[in-house]
Amino acid sequence: MATSNIEIAQLAELRPITRIAERLGIPDEELEPYGRYKAKVSLRHLRTLREKPRGRLVLMTAVSPTPAGEGKTTTTVGLGDALSRIGERAMICLREPALGPVFGMKGGAAGGGYAQVVPMEDINLHFTGDFSAIAIATNLLAALIDNHVHHGNALGIDMRRVTWRRVLDVNDRALRDAVIGLGGPSNGYPREDGFDIVVASEVMAIFCLATDLADLKERLGEIVVAYRRDRTPIRARDLQAHGAMAAILRDALAPNLVQTLEHTPAFVHGGPFANIAHGCNSYLATDSALRMADYVVTEAGFGADLGAEKFVDILCRTTGLRPDVAVVVATVRAMKYHGGVEVADLALPDVAALERGTSNLIRHLKTLRETWGIPTVVAINHRAEDTDAETAALVAAAQSVGVTAVVAKHFAEGGAGAEDLAREVVRLCDERAAETGDEASALRFTYSDDATLWRKMSAIATRIYGASEITASTAVRAQITRLQDEGYGGYPVCVAKTQYSFSTDPKLRGAPTGHVVDIREVRLAAGARFVVMICGDIMTMPGLPAVPAANSIDVDDQGRIVGLF
Amino acid sequence: MATSNIEIAQLAELRPITRIAERLGIPDEELEPYGRYKAKVSLRHLRTLREKPRGRLVLMTAVSPTPAGEGKTTTTVGLGDALSRIGERAMICLREPALGPVFGMKGGAAGGGYAQVVPMEDINLHFTGDFSAIAIATNLLAALIDNHVHHGNALGIDMRRVTWRRVLDVNDRALRDAVIGLGGPSNGYPREDGFDIVVASEVMAIFCLATDLADLKERLGEIVVAYRRDRTPIRARDLQAHGAMAAILRDALAPNLVQTLEHTPAFVHGGPFANIAHGCNSYLATDSALRMADYVVTEAGFGADLGAEKFVDILCRTTGLRPDVAVVVATVRAMKYHGGVEVADLALPDVAALERGTSNLIRHLKTLRETWGIPTVVAINHRAEDTDAETAALVAAAQSVGVTAVVAKHFAEGGAGAEDLAREVVRLCDERAAETGDEASALRFTYSDDATLWRKMSAIATRIYGASEITASTAVRAQITRLQDEGYGGYPVCVAKTQYSFSTDPKLRGAPTGHVVDIREVRLAAGARFVVMICGDIMTMPGLPAVPAANSIDVDDQGRIVGLF
Repeated sequence: MATSNIEIAQLAELRPITRIAERLGIPDEELEPYGRYKAKVSLRHLRTLREKPRGRLVLMTAVSPTPAGEGKTTTTVGLGDALSRIGERAMICLREPALGPVFGMKGGAAGGGYAQVVPMEDINLHFTGDFSAIAIATNLLAALIDNHVHHGNALGIDMRRVTWRRVLDVNDRALRDAVIGLGGPSNGYPREDGFDIVVASEVMAIFCLATDLADLKERLGEIVVAYRRDRTPIRARDLQAHGAMAAILRDALAPNLVQTLEHTPAFVHGGPFANIAHGCNSYLATDSALRMADYVVTEAGFGADLGAEKFVDILCRTTGLRPDVAVVVATVRAMKYHGGVEVADLALPDVAALERGTSNLIRHLKTLRETWGIPTVVAINHRAEDTDAETAALVAAAQSVGVTAVVAKHFAEGGAGAEDLAREVVRLCDERAAETGDEASALRFTYSDDATLWRKMSAIATRIYGASEITASTAVRAQITRLQDEGYGGYPVCVAKTQYSFSTDPKLRGAPTGHVVDIREVRLAAGARFVVMICGDIMTMPGLPAVPAANSIDVDDQGRIVGLF
Repeated sequence: MATSNIEIAQLAELRPITRIAERLGIPDEELEPYGRYKAKVSLRHLRTLREKPRGRLVLMTAVSPTPAGEGKTTTTVGLGDALSRIGERAMICLREPALGPVFGMKGGAAGGGYAQVVPMEDINLHFTGDFSAIAIATNLLAALIDNHVHHGNALGIDMRRVTWRRVLDVNDRALRDAVIGLGGPSNGYPREDGFDIVVASEVMAIFCLATDLADLKERLGEIVVAYRRDRTPIRARDLQAHGAMAAILRDALAPNLVQTLEHTPAFVHGGPFANIAHGCNSYLATDSALRMADYVVTEAGFGADLGAEKFVDILCRTTGLRPDVAVVVATVRAMKYHGGVEVADLALPDVAALERGTSNLIRHLKTLRETWGIPTVVAINHRAEDTDAETAALVAAAQSVGVTAVVAKHFAEGGAGAEDLAREVVRLCDERAAETGDEASALRFTYSDDATLWRKMSAIATRIYGASEITASTAVRAQITRLQDEGYGGYPVCVAKTQYSFSTDPKLRGAPTGHVVDIREVRLAAGARFVVMICGDIMTMPGLPAVPAANSIDVDDQGRIVGLF
């Protein structure tokens, strides 16, 4: 029987986190240990790093996700370890796992096999409490809204137009739609409300975009939580909520340092949804890692059409981060799935289906290389059942658009299995450095800052998704026009759509063209400073499956966690 | 202008928590630091302490609370520091502050003046995340209930009889009563529900009663969350929830070690409500402290009729803890309040009112000494405006029932101001040790284990509250009889009533007699293993005031928390 992720993780010999920090030049007094193997790096230390040059940034992204799982986190870890093995000073940056999915369908999210970040159980189960702090900040703001109305509503909040929702880090479908404030005058005014999962909170997005504590507080103050009858906005600042929210988040904002199984330093920090939010780990983690290491592998959510697009058009645009190279994780299974094979049959060889499915990969590669101008390599995350013919077909497909595809076996072999990938990453970076001295100018965005919100959405849909056009109801169009008129036209657009397809239909695999992207709803994220356009059905509060992972997660009398995968 | 609590705390020179732990004989590898000044002591280390003898246990309690605040936490800190100053190896044990009240009315709860536990901001703001872990465990169980019904309800849960409520660590009156599960079939079945504050959760009570991780998990499994149509119970175990809940709570269960301003070691761990739950910090904290120190001062919630009664009848009864001495905190202000003076006039001298108000103190003293047999001392928590005549009257009142009252000035002077109190505590302990060799036999409970639930409640009401009788509606009586018949008759009773009066009417100050205690509702806490009897109006989810403390709490650009009192 194969060794499970948690067994491998629990057998690992970890180094004290103080030693990992020492190698990064973090002074002892700037490290806030959380137990022996986790630590936060002080914001004060991060400030001292700002003058240091940034190392090379590797953006880890993937083909459109499939039920088989592509192993993006695993490949981030494997590549980090491989870069360390070939002598580079490397770090990796990951998102923190949300507890909801850990107890739901997904299980752990700290890599897999011999490519994991550890201590795996801690990272998966409450970790350093960041998400709880984010949930409390979000829910405090919500309580202050209803409390303000209860005590006389001096600001004139229109109870029908409260947009701020509460959050929990639990998958709980029963809380999606609720009526609160029942029970009579002492409990406030009844109104419709609902809960999202914590990763969908705008506070999470702000947390991951903030450049420092002052920026965090400023953005928290800008959050629009409700409107008056005359449609003028009520902000968190109007409720004097942002100071207390920032106070709750102060400690959480310092990035969490852990290590891989092979002792490569890893920041695991923040974790916004890649649909309703921008899907990247915290700016502070990735930026600080770049000041301490020569290579930083940072992971963006879902496929390149969502996570990488937002990494480029939201995060890079507003912070000056620039990826030197992108790695697209693809698997033989995922390509067969995109070629039409059903999940149950994915283990069977099928070169023809695989070739059809590479259309998905190829569109992502074109986006990365041609639209955005990022040198790109494909990482074929290897599984034992992959046939040589299948792998060769996948390599050939990538080569057809001028991209090298490298087989990586880090899941089974750790960093040693991803050395070829690491060497190709270094080669691409060297090549790029030789060609373009000025990194900043090399990245091209999907749209310019001064395009209208409508044109921005249109550019993403047609250039990245292959759609023919975008549509919206009269009401949604009016809403977009209003946001444009109110001065939010300069914000980037954050598209919330299914991750499973370039289109808004999760069943359309491969690389659909000519489809229409309908904007169902528009939401202003004034603190995150982007406009969310919701296209298709998007779930901001997942449910638990019939047999949740929680049923098998347990702790034995010695305190060992079992049943976490 | 007087120096504020947070200013004093921020000016303090803290010792590294590793040094505090060293003095307690905690090996380095058994200490899990959370930053530089907080740490968790491993459960493994606690196991090694079990063979060591327990030191002397000082129970800190108080007169019935008044709006003026009596300073029980402050006195716990001051006495701990004073014991250290006179050469005793002392520790203190406190409850963790809940965030809800910190952002509501109460502000911080880490002591005050020169008698505080530090780092004060950390302890008040999210600390080591224990309460968030407890909230997640509670809410995961709730989600598993609704999820079970959604997926077919194999257990036959009667949706109208779900008793398990969700929790948040936010004061949010709008969540007291809600209808959830709205929005159609994919969101489950609509039902009435509501949120409590996290300190009201049965998980919090279990957390604070558990003797180790195995006991914690066992008790979590026993929680009754709902009933079938035939009234048979559904337990957390039936939903396979308890393993995952224990896994979430594993790290939290290790007590949090911090220090006072004068470097006395302090466990700050757990914090159940003293009405709906038993109101004492965790058993593991107090018991472990007793194995490491010669004197341990542990604080119970509210006045002696609630916190101390539960300490004795629930915690001591089930765990074998035995207090050697009790300290009752009283203030000149509180006595005047109980004597009928209005809050605005409390600063004015009024010996006559004070003498009337000492009826409250005297009843608590009689309970402690005569009913339970605990040697007792009164700590007069001094304020600058107290007159000599008032203090003398308070001392005389205590002496009238044979109890010494000692003026303590720790708020202004730190431990030095409470040395007289410390000496009296030591004297009482020595005296007791000389009189009774066998500590365990000395404590008398309010009722015996084998009394019926009704008789237990009656004993508390008549012997502790001075009531003439207890009453209940036919429905409540039937419920009590059913619990008795179902085998819960052996459990202790946990009374939820107002903390402001011996009666169930918060306006009845002093020491009312002849009042009737009506049992409004009965709840089974099968995991905590007590039966809650709710008498009068009890709020399990507080609201925020018109001007919440959150409005003034802030963090500056250097990361310094301001506005926390």
